[in-house]
Amino acid sequence: MRALVMHPNRFVLEERPLPEPGPGQVLARTLACGICGSDLHLYRHADAMLELGRQAGIPEEILSKGVVLGHEFIAEIAGFGPGTRQQLAIGDRVTSTPFVKGELETVPMGSTPLVDGAYAEYFLLSEELLIPVPKDLPTTAAALTEPLAIGIHAVNRASLDGNPVAIVVGCGPIGLAVIAALRLRGVEHIIAGDFSAKRRELALAMGATIVVDAAQGSPFAHIPADLAAKPAVSFECTGATGMLGQIVEQIPARSEIVVAGIAHGSDSFTPMLAIAKELSIHFVSFYQQAEFQAALDALADGSINWRPWITGKVGLEGVATAFEELKDPERHAKILIYPNGE
Amino acid sequence: MRALVMHPNRFVLEERPLPEPGPGQVLARTLACGICGSDLHLYRHADAMLELGRQAGIPEEILSKGVVLGHEFIAEIAGFGPGTRQQLAIGDRVTSTPFVKGELETVPMGSTPLVDGAYAEYFLLSEELLIPVPKDLPTTAAALTEPLAIGIHAVNRASLDGNPVAIVVGCGPIGLAVIAALRLRGVEHIIAGDFSAKRRELALAMGATIVVDAAQGSPFAHIPADLAAKPAVSFECTGATGMLGQIVEQIPARSEIVVAGIAHGSDSFTPMLAIAKELSIHFVSFYQQAEFQAALDALADGSINWRPWITGKVGLEGVATAFEELKDPERHAKILIYPNGE
Repeated sequence: MRALVMHPNRFVLEERPLPEPGPGQVLARTLACGICGSDLHLYRHADAMLELGRQAGIPEEILSKGVVLGHEFIAEIAGFGPGTRQQLAIGDRVTSTPFVKGELETVPMGSTPLVDGAYAEYFLLSEELLIPVPKDLPTTAAALTEPLAIGIHAVNRASLDGNPVAIVVGCGPIGLAVIAALRLRGVEHIIAGDFSAKRRELALAMGATIVVDAAQGSPFAHIPADLAAKPAVSFECTGATGMLGQIVEQIPARSEIVVAGIAHGSDSFTPMLAIAKELSIHFVSFYQQAEFQAALDALADGSINWRPWITGKVGLEGVATAFEELKDPERHAKILIYPNGE
Repeated sequence: MRALVMHPNRFVLEERPLPEPGPGQVLARTLACGICGSDLHLYRHADAMLELGRQAGIPEEILSKGVVLGHEFIAEIAGFGPGTRQQLAIGDRVTSTPFVKGELETVPMGSTPLVDGAYAEYFLLSEELLIPVPKDLPTTAAALTEPLAIGIHAVNRASLDGNPVAIVVGCGPIGLAVIAALRLRGVEHIIAGDFSAKRRELALAMGATIVVDAAQGSPFAHIPADLAAKPAVSFECTGATGMLGQIVEQIPARSEIVVAGIAHGSDSFTPMLAIAKELSIHFVSFYQQAEFQAALDALADGSINWRPWITGKVGLEGVATAFEELKDPERHAKILIYPNGE
């Protein structure tokens, strides 16, 4: 089978033997796999990740094999390992949270050299974690389950008491997922800010009610006048240093801030301002199983306007170019990979 | 009447005319008034506060009169202004949140040159905000209503889901109030850290279950082993720069942090750590009316071990010395002023 292997600064399309499902595992044939912002990040920092792997004691022969990325996947069952229950059948479409159950612990897949992901024609999944994809849901839409679950989880971290105005700062992949999840929850006012016209257009398509060009001003200035003194909820979806401090300055008193962007390094802000305003700040990492299921259900029941979200489709040979193109926010939101053809 | 007036770097005990209650106001005769940490702060930064007052456009003739501090008071009604309902009687003991209702807005008392506080034999209160002090509750205990309300409010900002271990960082006036409020809520494990032996002793008296000398190690190292991986709740009660970052580093994943200490300037922390742990940080400013009432009720029904909290009693002439003594955490927690004698 073909697998796309990430090494520092390059992808290599390799011919590899079909993976052999172990106890409790299934062989999964990849139908579609999204390119995640975290994949781009891992590629950009592949050298540093390799060094972290060395420090963590991962043997050089494993590290040198490279990483098969891919954790936003839809697959069909292509084979069963020993000790499986086989309540689903060969050919059934499935997804799963991106983890594989090991003997001792459940480990992430598609982001380390230890467990391969879905940037390949085939990969392995734990039968116990499989979730069947509803019959009428197109594979293309179902592949958005994982990123949508991130948005649903971020929104669930806020109380949303009193139907607050929501301000989404940054309309990249996480911002768009948050907007979709806010719309799903029936939030009435969703104000989204971004520098990119394309992303603002996507934000409107996903459910934002007002979009603001970040070069022209703050989204907080667009809170309707009669709601400007009421508690709001803001989602930091840029990961930019200093952005949390700016939100603390601009948000109304008694508001909540959800930090969903992935920030690196140290950041600073003025506690006295957060104290005087009685703000709450929730930091977001990872969805729960029920939130992943809720994302799939929302896609299946037609609540999500998913078509505009997908801006590109490639085979494994197109991934390197897609990674380049994804650097330009005017071109793309989500690119899906079809390792076995669409 | 005698009033203790704060000027930069000095207190002056002045003879002043009895204040005249305006419409809706009562004349209050001070029975007891606590010295708050914020009073010490205002005294230390009286020059800067004066400058802020100038910038805010307060006329020089008002600023030059100085400030009568005092917002943690118990008083008895000594007279009624025009248009009052007089449902309480002369001599009745009352307290109030530290605000006075003006024609246009409700303004704080005892912290600015605009409305005098209770470091005086008499002061003015809004009849509408009066809360009667229960008959059997000693005045001395009732004077702790305001600081206890701060603790109750801080604890109410946390969800306390799943009966978490509580770690209180700093056992000054706010830390002690938080400990009392945690005990009131039935929290089982209350771990408190402070450098001062006296404050650790007070923390135990107020309900801490474990106290840790901050010079010897972190209170987080004392979470019982079987609870060390569970979400906890921590209260930052020092106001020290960098302390929030230390708590973010040491607290278990999925915990809540309540920032109750008053921090000045800018502070920094590592968002990635807060993200990976899915922390929530709540910033605390001011109690609600119901929390003030809850504090008075808890003191009245005997739920609070209030006696150790009070470490000194002075008349107006003893306040300047008390302010000096309060700098030493080994000597005092709360000093009460009795302007008309105890």
